[in-house]
Amino acid sequence: MTKNPPSSTAIHPLARFAAELRWQDIPEPVQRRAEDLWVDWFGSVLAGCRARPVASITRFARSQGPSEGPSEVIGHAGASTSPMMAALANAAASHVAEQDDVHNGSVFHPAAVVFPPALAVAQSIGASGEELMAACVAGYEVGIRVGEFLGRSHYKIFHTTATAGTLAAAAAVGRLLELSPEQMQHAFGSAGTQSAGLWEFLRTAADSKQLHTAHAAAAGLMAAYLARDDFTGAQDIFTGPQGLAAGMSRDSDPTRLTDGLGTRWATAETSFKWHASCRHTHPAADALLQVMHEHNLKLQDIAHITCHVHQGAIDVLGPVVSPATVHQSKFSMGTVLALAARFGHAGLTEFDDEYLAPETVALRGKVSMVLDPEVDGAYPRRWLGRVTVQTADGRQLTGRVDEPKGDPGNTLTRGELTAKALRLAAYGGAVSPADAEAAVQRLWQVAQWPRVEALL
Amino acid sequence: MTKNPPSSTAIHPLARFAAELRWQDIPEPVQRRAEDLWVDWFGSVLAGCRARPVASITRFARSQGPSEGPSEVIGHAGASTSPMMAALANAAASHVAEQDDVHNGSVFHPAAVVFPPALAVAQSIGASGEELMAACVAGYEVGIRVGEFLGRSHYKIFHTTATAGTLAAAAAVGRLLELSPEQMQHAFGSAGTQSAGLWEFLRTAADSKQLHTAHAAAAGLMAAYLARDDFTGAQDIFTGPQGLAAGMSRDSDPTRLTDGLGTRWATAETSFKWHASCRHTHPAADALLQVMHEHNLKLQDIAHITCHVHQGAIDVLGPVVSPATVHQSKFSMGTVLALAARFGHAGLTEFDDEYLAPETVALRGKVSMVLDPEVDGAYPRRWLGRVTVQTADGRQLTGRVDEPKGDPGNTLTRGELTAKALRLAAYGGAVSPADAEAAVQRLWQVAQWPRVEALL
Repeated sequence: MTKNPPSSTAIHPLARFAAELRWQDIPEPVQRRAEDLWVDWFGSVLAGCRARPVASITRFARSQGPSEGPSEVIGHAGASTSPMMAALANAAASHVAEQDDVHNGSVFHPAAVVFPPALAVAQSIGASGEELMAACVAGYEVGIRVGEFLGRSHYKIFHTTATAGTLAAAAAVGRLLELSPEQMQHAFGSAGTQSAGLWEFLRTAADSKQLHTAHAAAAGLMAAYLARDDFTGAQDIFTGPQGLAAGMSRDSDPTRLTDGLGTRWATAETSFKWHASCRHTHPAADALLQVMHEHNLKLQDIAHITCHVHQGAIDVLGPVVSPATVHQSKFSMGTVLALAARFGHAGLTEFDDEYLAPETVALRGKVSMVLDPEVDGAYPRRWLGRVTVQTADGRQLTGRVDEPKGDPGNTLTRGELTAKALRLAAYGGAVSPADAEAAVQRLWQVAQWPRVEALL
Repeated sequence: MTKNPPSSTAIHPLARFAAELRWQDIPEPVQRRAEDLWVDWFGSVLAGCRARPVASITRFARSQGPSEGPSEVIGHAGASTSPMMAALANAAASHVAEQDDVHNGSVFHPAAVVFPPALAVAQSIGASGEELMAACVAGYEVGIRVGEFLGRSHYKIFHTTATAGTLAAAAAVGRLLELSPEQMQHAFGSAGTQSAGLWEFLRTAADSKQLHTAHAAAAGLMAAYLARDDFTGAQDIFTGPQGLAAGMSRDSDPTRLTDGLGTRWATAETSFKWHASCRHTHPAADALLQVMHEHNLKLQDIAHITCHVHQGAIDVLGPVVSPATVHQSKFSMGTVLALAARFGHAGLTEFDDEYLAPETVALRGKVSMVLDPEVDGAYPRRWLGRVTVQTADGRQLTGRVDEPKGDPGNTLTRGELTAKALRLAAYGGAVSPADAEAAVQRLWQVAQWPRVEALL
């Protein structure tokens, strides 16, 4: 069963698509959504770039790369280094605030693993804004489809953003480096064979999530550079008998890899995060806000909240009963609902200041999760929010949302996105409000940039 | 089930062992064997450092690191860079010639993922030769046990040298950085969550093997540096419900992680490679040489050779029927046996010059593999060689070896190791014979070095 190296007839359609995607082929609404995602991502980086685990990775990256280079280390006073090391640092920063985007169907956070490596390489090679953004759309389309392909069994053990993230990063960087379809396929092979990232760290609130995005960005970037140098990878890293699905999934679906390529734009299906917590908590939080608003409930009216959730929420959030850190509290359904109930929004500041407040802890103890067949059946395509509130006076009230705020059908306006990015920048404290505002205004114009320069 | 961050009572014995191992605690025969492995590794690096895939990784590493640094890029005319980038390049070089060492029970190649990151860091921090070698023994002991723990089901899909390799590299580098046991455990968590490497690349003779060792070395090194900076990882990356075994093994055995720690020295169980091919081919090759010698067989006497092998050999070698590249031919049982039969030894030069020669191809076609219960039952602890040769005149002859040449009970002398290293260096052509010889003589004295300097 030995085959010769891939010929042009054996190129996977996903590799060909990623290698050939041009900005002008992307429908205008998708272009605009890509710009929305880009600005939204920038806020997350600025929010996270000084967090302790990110600072560790950034220190390491800067110590291993050149002390100056073509690629910006965002939020570190003009620091720069090589593309790989900048990608490592910026990707670590992108995910820590838990405010970056998410694609529901794949349970994949594309921005954190796509924009950092693409930006670093675009700055290094002098790409235009259009070239950068087309490459990022390629990264989104590939990463999301790989996440969908790997399926729910994969996500039970593996952090899909980390694993599919290597492919997403390779696609984006590969497009910028103008890989041929055959080279792109090799880049996929090299990226996929570096796919890694286990959920085990959540159990002790460890820092691995930041390492996961950093690793995916750097590994995918390396895969693309190597492919440009004609370094070869597996021909069929996805479905081969010793490939990704064989090793890391029990319910993989190869049809998802090419689902609607060029007509269905997964980029535009990506959701923005409104609450600063794990996305699995958002539907229930919004359903709670809905029922509280409808019945004008106060905190003291709430005796118990039952969240009717999908299995993935139980898998990820279930172990977190008594959060020991701010980061872990973002995976505590009880904490998120308590903050939402108390403040109308579970934002970064609310988490930092209030996650262990007595009122939060008291309400947290009144929240439980149960598996709901309807919610579970709709997941991961739709993230339905269903809660039952038992009131102190004995009523049973139901809260429902079918699209949590930030989902494509309930999306954020450009005004809301700008405000969110500036809130995140202010939270991070790495740049002045004026500098953040000027940068965000420039970022909205990315598609007009003749050349990608430093963002700050 | 939320736990607090690891306390001192929850340190895994393997992390504690790696953090506390000192050179003087290692029995003298094990110290000497470690020196043997060190010299043997150096030959493999020099043999591989100019190979095409290695050159790609080295170019990339040098482009992403500083143009000068504390760590040597071996075989590139005095080039140096940062520890991570040197580890990336040197680890890529270590495995390509298929002459580096192997531990049978774990089917793990320790040298390629232990010495490169440890050397790069030792050069960077000015460690002594003893500190370097104690760290490398820690890397061997950890990596081998992790490989044994992950088991045979893991190896069917995953390249254990790549996956367990991240842990081995983290242990070695972590020891050099003097991590506390708790920090070492965090380093294990960060290394394990970067564990990756799929066999799929073999099917098309792709270059991924070199990426695998490079990735393991760099990822493990990063994990150790981050842990020194108090970056945390999963407390139980091995056996946790979303850890390595849960994601990547169906027959993991946790008792192997601590098997004989401090009394059983897995380092000394490591075998040297005599033939320049996949280790799975060696038992049969030696058994063939044995039966040919015993019965004074010539090539034309051989009508058919049946190799009685373990399942792992069929899994790895089975797909390679008609090798398209030199590298792939090292995974072709037929090619290896043909070269051994023709030249008495399947070395690098024999592969390069003869793997597609008509005589080789003709004999290759006469070789088959069958699963043998006795051989399979002994594997992976013992790699038994069993062949049946059908002769042209109708005889059935049996060849047997119980320890292929290079195994601990049939090991190489220091003279053979020196000669092998110099042969490999000459093959690689990166350094002059005089420089190689001087370096090898110095390398034998590593335990006396007050400070690890450039090897060349």
